[in-house]
Amino acid sequence: MIDKESKLYSCWLNHDGIKNSKYKEYLEEIYVSCKSEIIDSALSELKRALKGSDNDEKTQVIHENEKDVTGFKYISLVKKEDNSLVNDGYKIKYTVTDEKTECISVSARNDTGILYGVFALLRLFEQNKQLKGMEIIDNPKKDLRLINHWDNLDGTIERGFAGTSILFESNRNKEIMKEVMKEIGGITATSRALRKAFNDDYQVATDLDRINDYARMLSSVGINGAIINNTNVHEAETYLIDKKINIVKTISDIFNKWGIKTYLSINFAAPITLKDLETADPLDEEVKEWWKKKVQYVYSVIPNLGGFMVKADSEGRPGPFTYGRNHADGANMLGEALALYGGILIWRCFVYNCRQDWRDHSIDRAKAAYDCFEPLDGEFLDNVYLQIKNGPLDFQVREPISPLFGAMDKTNKLLELQITQEYTGQQKHVCYLIPLWKEALNIITYANGDSESNIAKRVGGINAIVNVGSDETWTGHFLAQANLYGYGRLAWNSELTSEEISEEWINITFGDNELVMKNVRKILLNSWRAYENYTAPLGIGWMVSPGHHYGPDVDGYEFSPWGTYHRADCKGIGIDRTLESGTGYAGQYNEPLRSKYNNLETCPDDLLLFFHHVPYTHVLKSGKTVIQHIYDTHFEGYKVVEEFISKWKELANIIDKTLYEQVLERLNIQLDSARDWRDQVNTYFYRMSGIEDEKGRTIY
Amino acid sequence: MIDKESKLYSCWLNHDGIKNSKYKEYLEEIYVSCKSEIIDSALSELKRALKGSDNDEKTQVIHENEKDVTGFKYISLVKKEDNSLVNDGYKIKYTVTDEKTECISVSARNDTGILYGVFALLRLFEQNKQLKGMEIIDNPKKDLRLINHWDNLDGTIERGFAGTSILFESNRNKEIMKEVMKEIGGITATSRALRKAFNDDYQVATDLDRINDYARMLSSVGINGAIINNTNVHEAETYLIDKKINIVKTISDIFNKWGIKTYLSINFAAPITLKDLETADPLDEEVKEWWKKKVQYVYSVIPNLGGFMVKADSEGRPGPFTYGRNHADGANMLGEALALYGGILIWRCFVYNCRQDWRDHSIDRAKAAYDCFEPLDGEFLDNVYLQIKNGPLDFQVREPISPLFGAMDKTNKLLELQITQEYTGQQKHVCYLIPLWKEALNIITYANGDSESNIAKRVGGINAIVNVGSDETWTGHFLAQANLYGYGRLAWNSELTSEEISEEWINITFGDNELVMKNVRKILLNSWRAYENYTAPLGIGWMVSPGHHYGPDVDGYEFSPWGTYHRADCKGIGIDRTLESGTGYAGQYNEPLRSKYNNLETCPDDLLLFFHHVPYTHVLKSGKTVIQHIYDTHFEGYKVVEEFISKWKELANIIDKTLYEQVLERLNIQLDSARDWRDQVNTYFYRMSGIEDEKGRTIY
Repeated sequence: MIDKESKLYSCWLNHDGIKNSKYKEYLEEIYVSCKSEIIDSALSELKRALKGSDNDEKTQVIHENEKDVTGFKYISLVKKEDNSLVNDGYKIKYTVTDEKTECISVSARNDTGILYGVFALLRLFEQNKQLKGMEIIDNPKKDLRLINHWDNLDGTIERGFAGTSILFESNRNKEIMKEVMKEIGGITATSRALRKAFNDDYQVATDLDRINDYARMLSSVGINGAIINNTNVHEAETYLIDKKINIVKTISDIFNKWGIKTYLSINFAAPITLKDLETADPLDEEVKEWWKKKVQYVYSVIPNLGGFMVKADSEGRPGPFTYGRNHADGANMLGEALALYGGILIWRCFVYNCRQDWRDHSIDRAKAAYDCFEPLDGEFLDNVYLQIKNGPLDFQVREPISPLFGAMDKTNKLLELQITQEYTGQQKHVCYLIPLWKEALNIITYANGDSESNIAKRVGGINAIVNVGSDETWTGHFLAQANLYGYGRLAWNSELTSEEISEEWINITFGDNELVMKNVRKILLNSWRAYENYTAPLGIGWMVSPGHHYGPDVDGYEFSPWGTYHRADCKGIGIDRTLESGTGYAGQYNEPLRSKYNNLETCPDDLLLFFHHVPYTHVLKSGKTVIQHIYDTHFEGYKVVEEFISKWKELANIIDKTLYEQVLERLNIQLDSARDWRDQVNTYFYRMSGIEDEKGRTIY
Repeated sequence: MIDKESKLYSCWLNHDGIKNSKYKEYLEEIYVSCKSEIIDSALSELKRALKGSDNDEKTQVIHENEKDVTGFKYISLVKKEDNSLVNDGYKIKYTVTDEKTECISVSARNDTGILYGVFALLRLFEQNKQLKGMEIIDNPKKDLRLINHWDNLDGTIERGFAGTSILFESNRNKEIMKEVMKEIGGITATSRALRKAFNDDYQVATDLDRINDYARMLSSVGINGAIINNTNVHEAETYLIDKKINIVKTISDIFNKWGIKTYLSINFAAPITLKDLETADPLDEEVKEWWKKKVQYVYSVIPNLGGFMVKADSEGRPGPFTYGRNHADGANMLGEALALYGGILIWRCFVYNCRQDWRDHSIDRAKAAYDCFEPLDGEFLDNVYLQIKNGPLDFQVREPISPLFGAMDKTNKLLELQITQEYTGQQKHVCYLIPLWKEALNIITYANGDSESNIAKRVGGINAIVNVGSDETWTGHFLAQANLYGYGRLAWNSELTSEEISEEWINITFGDNELVMKNVRKILLNSWRAYENYTAPLGIGWMVSPGHHYGPDVDGYEFSPWGTYHRADCKGIGIDRTLESGTGYAGQYNEPLRSKYNNLETCPDDLLLFFHHVPYTHVLKSGKTVIQHIYDTHFEGYKVVEEFISKWKELANIIDKTLYEQVLERLNIQLDSARDWRDQVNTYFYRMSGIEDEKGRTIY
């Protein structure tokens, strides 16, 4: 059973910091002039914070008339026009009216703005920030701040590492599915028949309170939309826009209270799957009509649905290519139907040939998205967003940015990130991803020669595959909560630094103990590099066990059809993606990025093997040879995990015991796994190259 | 739906050859002096053969008095004492009584002998052998001629490649299980939770006629025992000796009609699993008593049960080690309980450390069985049989024989073979295994210096994991029927040659068309070497995809805990198992085998890398270097599969169309797979060694 009062569960919303806040008495008196279910949510959160503050004897008084609140310290929630604010933005202002009346007001143009302001205010309280005389204006930098569930109706989660779905469940087989998930560590392509075996009896999860708690979490960091089902839409999920729509409605009703719009992943072939038509051709009039009626129906049940997301012509999913149409044809057909209701259409650019022949060095998966979409720039409707993964491949620990971000000026773009740690340790390893995302957001694309054109500016929003499930910690690894938290904060304001976000999360989660702050920060901020160090080197990626993607297998994808190779032999390693002798992928970037990556001399070490095939004796900018770099980073990466453990052990008697044990257990799993990575990668390259480690360490 | 009249289904019992037999009129008159359900089975087979012979208008007359059968050509079935025969043996004798009375008599000491004689007689008819004046005496060389099902109660088959179980099914989920099996190509360790998901509603298969047809097949080649459930006995199967015993009873009743004894795989921890005791300690009096009562109960329901088989202390299965006891303690405790009813106890020697560290070169899985069992020689009861796999590892395409066969003179031994093609192409590839088994049976062990002591002589019988399932062909690949057929024939008489067996099988299966005989023989007899050529070279084994074991993955088991390595680096490859510098495994053999394998100069090429680590430039007895051998065999192996296809295509209009298409489809799958093997193995070693192919062929 889940303990909902536990530290694991309550995460960064435990409000424990209120106890020691100098502002806690403000929580006893609230003035609010507006009414809505979202405002109710804001009030309920203020009440919850007060309750947790040991002011148990105090009751929160909610005033509807401002003149009733003189003589107090109070919080005021005010909706008003304010030119310094955009929708969802908020202002927090400290005012002294008279000797006895001090007010902290949260104002906004809309209800969600007030809600976000309240969460921000509580964070400030909990961090004991000095508020006297302060005025904070905080507007979100992006309108679309989305998360994406890869949850299936049977309760499984594709690439989920924290239990089963909190949104859906198959009643009869709930317990069994949990065991299956636990055993096979996530559902892979080979489980279609398994999913079919449970293809009955689907329903919304029984624990609706938990969905509400989840919505609070999302809303607290400014998330305003959620795609609730897996991007791979199978038969059962196709019915979410049909006879199973009530499942969506139930979830959407809860999300609405927290200002979160619901979106659906849809099946491009739905007219066929639902047995209405024999084609899904986007230019067929019947098909267009079918979708218009379907969208009308969906909006009649869920009037504020955010829209649809589509994965088409990718990894076996149906799409417009079947009918000789292009992606603009497909996307616009759906976009048009949604536009009538203010909905948007998100179209994923994760399109490539997944039946590639490893023997053919001329095909390059990295080039596929650009080749497919760039020529269509200007053809997409205004409410269509192309969703582009940060890198050209698939959420590896290190990739260059997708060149599409520097192109397609006439097309709306979304950045796609992955919070769930598919390739970064599957929430068994600690891997704080904010620095990775920050790096991506800050890259200058040089679109139209603009040297300010970083990715953050080039996109209309961000969407990320979420890392939550039925585990008591929500995220499997407690420290992985920082990724969800940080993602929301970055989606709101990509200018926050990794350090700021980690500091804030640690403070409101663990309190302000100095050692905790120091050690957890150290773990988080060094974790991405540590993971990179003991896994695949210098931007080459992959080297994971096929299927589940956990643990080392240097050749795991080397002879596969997935377009994911390292091309190592006894002389050297790397993919030649240069214009002169390689696949030409580097040419998809704008100058000066193109030359930077294309030239061996200027290509950053971190991405060297992504762009170049070099001998093991090639000397990096660091002064080391490639082979020595491989050895060194693998020994170092393992060592850093040992340090994480000793840093964590210093917190043994300071933090919550269950939480301490949970993380310690995972850190030990990580250490074992890091040892496997270290030894298998080093052994592989030692055997392959025959070159000794300069430092004479043990390689097997 | 299965077409039971099809060529695919009726296999070598189609009796088509009777049509053209000069003896078919003999089938019209039968004299039989004895009665039993086994004799009834023999008669029913004779009737079936007559029916298929276009003598439809003729009725078979069965005479109970010999004087009624003068003036005819007839078959006589006679049970009698005959010193030239042992139990199960038979004599077929041609006699002319008078001008009009010719008799072919089948005589034996027991009913099954007559049954085997009838099947043999029909084979002779179908091959149109000259019988006039002939007297054939055929005694089985071994008493125990067993097959072993790895069928689970839920209908899945571990390492099954021909559909679901023909013995068991889970009623509700039958169809789903079929799909799961089809999709994942066999059940692996990762499917425990899946199996649990279906852990209700088990029953014997609904198609009992099919079980009867299966028993006919087994009996026709002399099989006299079947272990009906998976050696890995899970919770559900533990109940086969308890509340689910009626499932066993139903199957056993059918098998009895065909002279086949039923055996059960049992769970060593059954007293705990069935919740009766808290220990399974074999020296505990309560445990002994429990098993005695359990055996008494089982024999009260199934009086002629053959006995039990146990996999203990292996790959996670429980065993006596848990209680600090040895394998003799465990086996004898069960043996004692069974002895009272004439049952035997089969104890598997497949015991090794499956959590080995690949980093440690001193541990050697190949040594494990000998180290564990050899010291116990003389301690096992008379009705206990140690079952030993042909090789020391696990049914690889090429292994030396297990050294245990040359040891343990005071212990009953069984040879374990694998008909199901786990590591030999999974019934997608044609791989005729008789030559492999013949080679094993003929190896001289030099036990006590005896140069006649081949394995066939050292064992009390053979047990083999069967390759059948619910597929219409029984065996997935039609040509894989030859392995089941041939196994039975070899178990009966290990002196038959591979050529004789293939000839016989082709003739009675396809008829005597010369081209069919020639081409199918060519395919069968070259298939093992072809498979070996394009897969793992020179006895090194493995290099398969982990888990399901299909298709190439050179490093698939290189960093695993399973004790299955190749240790290839840029200089060389192979496992050093010599006495001087290696693991010392070679020392487990008797001289002169020990020296033969231990010395690089005398070790056969085929097993070179099993015993020695050598440079790629090492020159084989063939005159080729190791690396050139790898390249050459891989190109050749692929080419041979191309030849199989062209040979098969020559039969297009000669043989049954469905059968032709079925095999052709599989051959094409095999060709694709052989190409993958060829290119991945060659590429791996080319990249690793940097040595060019002398013939300049394409290596990627």
